[in-house]
Amino acid sequence: MSEYIKVAVDAMGGDNAPREIVKGAVEAVNESNKVKVYLVGVKEAVEKELSGHTYPKEQIEVVHASEIIETAEPPVMAIRKKKDSSLVRALNLVKDGTCDAYVSAGSTGATLVGGQVIVGRIKGVERPPLAPLIPTATGCSLLIDCGANVDARPSHLVQFAKMGSVYMENVMGIRNPKVGIVNIGAEEEKGNALVKETFPLLKNCPDINFIGSVEARDIPAGAADVVVCEAFTGNVILKTYEGVGATLLSKVKEGMMTSLRSKIGALLVKPALKQTLKAFDLEQYGGAPMLGLKGLVVKTHGSSKSIEIKNSILQCITFTEQRISEKIRQMLQSDGIVSGEQ
Amino acid sequence: MSEYIKVAVDAMGGDNAPREIVKGAVEAVNESNKVKVYLVGVKEAVEKELSGHTYPKEQIEVVHASEIIETAEPPVMAIRKKKDSSLVRALNLVKDGTCDAYVSAGSTGATLVGGQVIVGRIKGVERPPLAPLIPTATGCSLLIDCGANVDARPSHLVQFAKMGSVYMENVMGIRNPKVGIVNIGAEEEKGNALVKETFPLLKNCPDINFIGSVEARDIPAGAADVVVCEAFTGNVILKTYEGVGATLLSKVKEGMMTSLRSKIGALLVKPALKQTLKAFDLEQYGGAPMLGLKGLVVKTHGSSKSIEIKNSILQCITFTEQRISEKIRQMLQSDGIVSGEQ
Repeated sequence: MSEYIKVAVDAMGGDNAPREIVKGAVEAVNESNKVKVYLVGVKEAVEKELSGHTYPKEQIEVVHASEIIETAEPPVMAIRKKKDSSLVRALNLVKDGTCDAYVSAGSTGATLVGGQVIVGRIKGVERPPLAPLIPTATGCSLLIDCGANVDARPSHLVQFAKMGSVYMENVMGIRNPKVGIVNIGAEEEKGNALVKETFPLLKNCPDINFIGSVEARDIPAGAADVVVCEAFTGNVILKTYEGVGATLLSKVKEGMMTSLRSKIGALLVKPALKQTLKAFDLEQYGGAPMLGLKGLVVKTHGSSKSIEIKNSILQCITFTEQRISEKIRQMLQSDGIVSGEQ
Repeated sequence: MSEYIKVAVDAMGGDNAPREIVKGAVEAVNESNKVKVYLVGVKEAVEKELSGHTYPKEQIEVVHASEIIETAEPPVMAIRKKKDSSLVRALNLVKDGTCDAYVSAGSTGATLVGGQVIVGRIKGVERPPLAPLIPTATGCSLLIDCGANVDARPSHLVQFAKMGSVYMENVMGIRNPKVGIVNIGAEEEKGNALVKETFPLLKNCPDINFIGSVEARDIPAGAADVVVCEAFTGNVILKTYEGVGATLLSKVKEGMMTSLRSKIGALLVKPALKQTLKAFDLEQYGGAPMLGLKGLVVKTHGSSKSIEIKNSILQCITFTEQRISEKIRQMLQSDGIVSGEQ
């Protein structure tokens, strides 16, 4: 029992809570016997959902929390006031060592604040980034940072590059991951003040495979495995991805419905097309990890269905087994020595 | 003859120069009798291309320039050294009043520098932005600024909002265009330092229809007609647009080619699909105007074919007829009075 990877799940967070969250937890424990889920939320509601499912009872535990933090609430205040919310209770399970990881589809702001304030940063981490995986033509890349803290400093970006490399190498299995910094041209002298200051620091960083600037145009083609930028830029990239994808696909559908001929064609291409486009779906990768914390905090999309919750929970297994937080700690420590030697 | 709108075209700029540039000029004068094109470039090469076409002779004039500025050259140095380049000669035709407008598919950097240094800013304009039209689900929006000068100040963004409004109202015919500032959340208190400082300035700006923050996700849906941001963000949005569009469409094609069934379907949907997707093609809108200059400077994509050159030339007609530079001048002047009254 003590060998389970233990994941605290905010059962009340997200547009489809608690139904899809509970369903996702059930699917996760039915798929893997390595994980135990602590479903945190209003006990009655959670147990009612659970009662409709079959699953190994020892792998799910319900933890009562009477309050719920809404998406629109100011994060800092919500964390401070609602001590008995599912979000705060679940994060506390990670803090006190009961759980290894936390998953929520609830308020991004409250999760980011709670991650820092409750779970706490690894010593030496200046700013824990939120780093979603984004689909590319060849697989996926880590877009780091997409968090809520903007106006980063160069030293933050260097840490993002290192933490992102650890993640891609150990969780995604990409050897010597390529690290690029988002820029508006390929040349070193291009960019805004932040990029220009950060570029030489990354270039002289011995622990990472820095390939230089990456233009936003080349990100979807898979130009870098770890795409480093400050959070404002990261959010803009992530959301342009979502927006262009959604609009373009609706245009494709619209185009297929314009004539009888094309409607027949649409029926024929549909299955194959669905299959291919699935590989370019932002949501298939589960949640975005918040890196640099003492435990794992994963934020999934607010509209997550059970499949994303399941994937997010299962993702915690690799993260914990690979001791990512420990590896990040080591990298930042060794870094202190390395920069002393330079 | 003096009633023509006169456009200086850099015949040697771009990947397909001079062939496609000359062809585009010919197509423009064959389509409109309002425009006269000055084709600036190596005389022999340009005349050789021209000799294969039929067009009203009085609407095209060749102006010799012996040098060519390459895309990779450092812009400031290129402008200074290559006085007899097609780019510099063509811009000088606007400066000395021979022409009303300039079109080039050549070096973006040199065009932006040359626009400021040779053509010159309208009095009061702090920084002339490059503002491409981007396709949306409902039409198109102006993305302002996508230029080369990053790290803008709040006052720059306010001017972008005003100049963009003048453009969309008078050139694109959108009454009272909606102006949004790119942000990572809808709330006024969100954003980086630049956005937070700019937001109240835009809110208190009487001349524009400011609708608040626009998330990048909502830009492709057409949330705002004038999308205001500093150039680093603008470049990232524009290039993510291009990259996601290209990757997604290649995935759609790939999906259609995976089975015999889907291949047959693809043949049936192709014509209808092509038609619909054309409306979402970044390049159909011709070039990006550089606003706030004493004459019109239009930069088209480096890979422009004749159709984009033609559209860019024809776009100069409306711009000049609507006296956009004059309207921008007036707006900035009236603004001086308005802000004095506040």
